[in-house]
Formats: sequence, C-alpha cells, structure tokens
Amino acid sequence: MNRIYFDNAATTSLDAAVLDSMMPYFTTHFGNPSSIYSYGRESRLAIENARKTVAKLLNAHPAEIFFTSGGTESSNTAITAAVRDLGCKHIITSAIEHHATLHTVEHLRHANEAALSYVKLLPDGHIDLEDLERLLAESKEKSLVTLMHANNEIGNILDIHAVGNTCKKFSAIFHSDTVQTVGHFPFDLRNTPVHFITGAGHKFHGPKGVGMLYVNENVKIKPFVHGGSQERNMRAGTENLYGIVGFAKALELATANYETESAYIKDLKLYMIEQLQKNIQQVAFNGDVLGNSLYTVLNVSFPKTEKSEMILFNLDINNICASGGSACTSGADTGSHVIRAVNNDPNQVAVRFSFSKYNTKAEIDTVVGKLKELI
Amino acid sequence: MNRIYFDNAATTSLDAAVLDSMMPYFTTHFGNPSSIYSYGRESRLAIENARKTVAKLLNAHPAEIFFTSGGTESSNTAITAAVRDLGCKHIITSAIEHHATLHTVEHLRHANEAALSYVKLLPDGHIDLEDLERLLAESKEKSLVTLMHANNEIGNILDIHAVGNTCKKFSAIFHSDTVQTVGHFPFDLRNTPVHFITGAGHKFHGPKGVGMLYVNENVKIKPFVHGGSQERNMRAGTENLYGIVGFAKALELATANYETESAYIKDLKLYMIEQLQKNIQQVAFNGDVLGNSLYTVLNVSFPKTEKSEMILFNLDINNICASGGSACTSGADTGSHVIRAVNNDPNQVAVRFSFSKYNTKAEIDTVVGKLKELI
Ligand SMILES: Cc1ncc(COP(=O)(O)O)c(C=O)c1O
Ligand SMILES: Cc1ncc(COP(=O)(O)O)c(C=O)c1O
Repeated sequence: MNRIYFDNAATTSLDAAVLDSMMPYFTTHFGNPSSIYSYGRESRLAIENARKTVAKLLNAHPAEIFFTSGGTESSNTAITAAVRDLGCKHIITSAIEHHATLHTVEHLRHANEAALSYVKLLPDGHIDLEDLERLLAESKEKSLVTLMHANNEIGNILDIHAVGNTCKKFSAIFHSDTVQTVGHFPFDLRNTPVHFITGAGHKFHGPKGVGMLYVNENVKIKPFVHGGSQERNMRAGTENLYGIVGFAKALELATANYETESAYIKDLKLYMIEQLQKNIQQVAFNGDVLGNSLYTVLNVSFPKTEKSEMILFNLDINNICASGGSACTSGADTGSHVIRAVNNDPNQVAVRFSFSKYNTKAEIDTVVGKLKELI
Repeated sequence: MNRIYFDNAATTSLDAAVLDSMMPYFTTHFGNPSSIYSYGRESRLAIENARKTVAKLLNAHPAEIFFTSGGTESSNTAITAAVRDLGCKHIITSAIEHHATLHTVEHLRHANEAALSYVKLLPDGHIDLEDLERLLAESKEKSLVTLMHANNEIGNILDIHAVGNTCKKFSAIFHSDTVQTVGHFPFDLRNTPVHFITGAGHKFHGPKGVGMLYVNENVKIKPFVHGGSQERNMRAGTENLYGIVGFAKALELATANYETESAYIKDLKLYMIEQLQKNIQQVAFNGDVLGNSLYTVLNVSFPKTEKSEMILFNLDINNICASGGSACTSGADTGSHVIRAVNNDPNQVAVRFSFSKYNTKAEIDTVVGKLKELI
C-alpha cells in the first residue's frame, strides 16, 4: 500500500522546483557570501535577492528580514531580545504555544529575567482577548506578548491585528510565531501591528534547517548567536546559502499558487470532516474547526477504547502518517499539552491530520475507511 | 582565465559524493525525524547513524555528539553553558580567537555573567602556556578556558593535550574551537582532555548550515536554543536532516583519505612558500609557518606599497580567491584582529592563502607569477 502522508504540519516534502533552485549552490557556486572577491559576492547576491523576494512577498522591508536556522531559533531570538534588549520584564503567552516559545519563556522566567503570565483560553481554544487586555492593563512592567498566529495542533487562527492593536495601546512588544502561516497565508507586514514574526522553510515545501525572522524596523535588537558580522551583524555564522535560496523560492511558489492551493486543501479538510461524521460515530473535532482555523490542519477526537488507543500505531502499520501532537515532542509520549489545555477529556483520543497540495480525496477515502475498521 | 580558489579556510566546495548522500533526503525521505511513525523513524535512523559515524571517527561516544546549525552556534552553546550551567565565572581566552568565541565571551562579560582574561601570545603567535597557568592559578573563580585548536588565519596549532592537562590541574572547563581541524586532523577524543569541541561541515567539503558540538560525557549542560526535544533535549528545532547526513559523509571521506590528502596539501603549502621566497623580495610569513601549523593555511606578508595595498582587489580581477582576514569580517574592512595581535607591522600587507585537495602546483605557479607582477 502506498504511503499516505497526512502530517504536513510536522514537515512537508521539498518541491522539485525548490531543489532545482538550490542545486547551483551545491555545485558550482560554493563561495562564502562574506568573502570580498567577486566569487563570494555572487553568493552574497543570491542571499540578498532571497531577502528581497521574501520581503516583497510579505510586504516588508528587506532590512527587516533575517535568515536563521529555523522557526525555533527565530522565536528564541525574538523572545530573548524582547526581554534583554527591549526591556520587557513581563511575558504574556498562552498554554497552547509551541515549545519553541514555551520553553524559551520558561527559561527566561527561571533565570529571573522576566515574569510570566498565561492568558486565558476560550472554550473553542481561541485566546480570550479580554483577559489579554486585563493582563496588559495590570502589568507594572513593559510586556512582551507572544502568541502564535495559527496553532500547529488544532489550527486555530489568532486575530493578529486585534492582538497587535491591543499591544500598541499598552506599548507592549508583540511576537507572533507564524511558522504555520508563513507560506500558507498572505501577509502584509507593513500594515500589521507586529514586531516579530517567524518562518520555517520546511513547513511550506522548502528546505529544513533554514528559517526567517522578521524584525520590525522600529525595534533594534542584538544578536542571539554571536560571532561574525553575517546578516548585518544580527545572526553570526556562515550562511546556509542553499537553504536561504530554497526558502525564498518555496515562499515564491507558495504565494503565487496561494488562491488555488488553499482552496484545494480547504476542500480536502471539509471533505474529511464530512466523511468522518458520516462514517464514525461520536467523532469530534478540537479547536474552532469550521471557524477561524487553518485550512491545513484537522484535529479529530475519537472515543477512547482499547482499539482507538492504538490508533496511531495501527495507522502507521497501514502506511498512513498522522500524529498525536507536535512532532518535536511525540517521542516523549506524554500526550499533547495543547489538547490537554483545550479538551482535557480522558475519554477521548486526539489525532491530527494535516494536508498539503499533494493530498487527494481518494487518500481521505482510504484513511476514513481504515479508521472505520480500526476504531 | 579559470578561477583559482585559494580560500578553503573560508569555505570549501561540496564533494559530489557528499551531495549524493544527501539527495535521498531532499527527495523521497522527507519525514520529520521526530515523528513516531515508521516513515519518520527512517529519518531518525539516518541522523542516529550520522551521529554514530561522527562519534566513531572522533573516538567519542554517540551521546557526546550534538548537531547544530554551524561552528558558530556550537561555540555559543559551549561557552554560554560553561558560564550558566557549569559555574565558570571567569573566562580565559586569547586575542586571536575567531569572532564566534570573542563576541560570545565579550557578550557574557558585558552582561556581567563572567570576568574575562586574555592569555599572552608568544612572538610566533602561539599561546603562552606559562601565562595560562598563571592566570588559572590566580583565578578565584572556576574558569572556562576557550582556545582554538588551529587558528583560521595564521594556521598555528595549539597543543590541546598540554592545555587540557593544565585545565585539569585547576579544575577548569576547556572548550576548543576545532572548526579548522575537524575533518582535517585525526581526533581521539576519549584520550583528549577537553570538554567541548566544535565542527562546521562546510570547512571539509561538507554542507553549509550544519555543525557539530562534542560535549564530554562528564559535563551536563542545558540547551542554548530552547523548544522541542530534538537532539535529546539539547538542541531544539526540526533537524537539518540532509545537512547532518552530509556532515557525517564528509567527515567519513576526509578521515578515510587523511594520510594522502594532508600530505598532498602540505606539499602545496611548502611549494608555495618556496616559490614566494624565490620570486618575491621581502616576503614574510605570519605565524609558526614551518612549525606547529595547519597544512591548509599560509599567511603571507608583503611589504606595503601602493600596489600591494591593492593586492586582494587585483587578485580578484585575475580570478584568484584569497582573503585578508576571516571571511565573516572581511565586509567590515577594519583589517584582521589576528594579524594585528601577532604582527602589528604597519609596513606590511597580509594575505591568507588556504588550500584543498583540489588545488595544484600549477595553480600556485600561476598565483606566484601574478603576485610577482602585482607587487
Ligand atoms: C507553530 C510552530 N512553531 C515553531 C515550530 C518550530 O519550527 P522548527 O522545528 O522548524 O524550528 C513549529 C514546527 O516544528 C511549529 O509548528
Ligand atoms: C576557527 C573558526 N571558528 C569558527 C568558525 C565559524 O564557523 P561557521 O561560520 O560555520 O559558523 C570559523 C569559520 O567561519 C572558523 O574558521
């Protein structure tokens, strides 16, 4: 049986056109982008063109775009800088952030560098914006608000404009983990009240090992990784030349095909909801599944039985890739902190299915058929 | 005229066999190494095999090898952890370290996390080991000694065993930036008194954007980049799967061919010394050029004249790649901090030539001929 890959929120396949764009830098164009001779300047040019491309696609200024090793490093950089360089001694976050955010803010709290508050969640998993406003109003310190744009497990989308405007009112710094939306969503950063956003190439058919950090031109921060003067002194280390070229190419393709691809994937998600409801009793969905939700992510709860507890294992045997939580913690097997926060029902088992343009309705039919058998 | 690439200490070309080893992970094997299904476990296996390969080649334990985004991140991790997790409140370093070390220790000093001392240099650019012993003996705090194995600009090699044993005597932690020696030198880490060493794939015909950190099993540190539980909770972020596979392959090739390749490259270096002395008056060499020195690096001083001041520019016009300092700062054009520290002669102009297995004596003849013309 062919593999069915329904775990695109964990990582995506690399597009052939993206790999093609990277190949010259693996072969003939290997010069160090920081070398001053013309052969090095060719590499520099490739990086600066990638930066311009990314900036243009997100409607930002090239000077606001920095390349990093991934979404995790980007969030570490933004959050740490907000505390150390921008004077935020109070961090407001939520219990359903990615661990790249949660473990970073916990580390800073533990080191007594900042106080930490968790904003309340509404029953559908959205952030309680009134509680956020209350936390900001009561804060005696300058605050950093770090709330993700789209949740990687349940797909809920934050109203980034509403949060940004609230932050503005209280002169707070706003970082949004946009790893699940960059490459999946149009951005207009010049008209978005946010100081930091992040991206990871491998979430939208680009390469692993490369990410992006947007730093609004009105904030000035210091590097997180110290050393050479790469990335205009903001991120030291010889640049991942191919990765950066591939990141820009993947974002270019994703943006060009956004309308058709997002409609296609959304249709897959709705079809799977329909088929699950038709075929499996007592199926339920986590998060605001039909509301303000990512078209790529569908988080399903099945009634807990001996069989459903083995569901991921049995899907795997049938060559179907889906996940219980975010990939980075699935090894730990302590369950998902996100599902615990939004739906702490011990009688349910949650599975995340996440889609890409390469999935089909036929695959959904196969998976729903299998689920029916396995539940 | 064909390009002559004499800047292999800045970066090297990617070996075709290394790229071949990476290709399956760019195409069919894209699973997230942290996903629990078998398709993800295939990626995990590739990473763990790479770790075992690297460990075996360096005679270390796989649990002591961590993959990072590069040499710079590895040094940031080691130095920061020594201060924050291992209680080193005094750092001893030298003025000729790479900026990945210098800017990290300066950052920690600036944040009042550690005091900072610079060990004296001998006239040939080697570390004054008596001064190191004195600094350690006088230190009231637990110390971190961070001294590079081979200097990337002048090639001087540190006696890592002597320094390690001195550190042991004073219960100091020892980090050595081995970015210029991993892949160029045999290592036997089980019998080397060092706590941390670093590596960067692109310095030995492996990929950019991936590095290694060796952490001796007797020290326990916390992550520098926080987030998911990748790299056994030591380095968060979706792994650079292809990069890691390529790193291990490049190290494997470099180790297998060490005897012949190092002899070949050393011969090139000696030939260039000889040809320069024969053809150019008043040529001089920086560092312990014929002594304890890296076979890949040759740092040459020319008498300063109107013509020699333009030397890098004119070499570039002739399609010859060489550098004035380390690539990461060459944009800044403030000259080399290493050359300033070891040979502060205002009447000389320093140029670094650095070789790989792909260079030839014919290229040296061409370059020396051009230099004769240009000086
Ligand atoms: C929402 C979110 N944030 C951050 C990350 C971290 O990105 P990376 O693992 O590429 O560093 C991920 C994915 O792993 C994610 O889904
Ligand atoms: C001695 C030394 N240390 C550290 C580095 C940093 O490595 P990277 O730029 O790959 O992070 C380099 C090269 O740039 C180097 O030559």
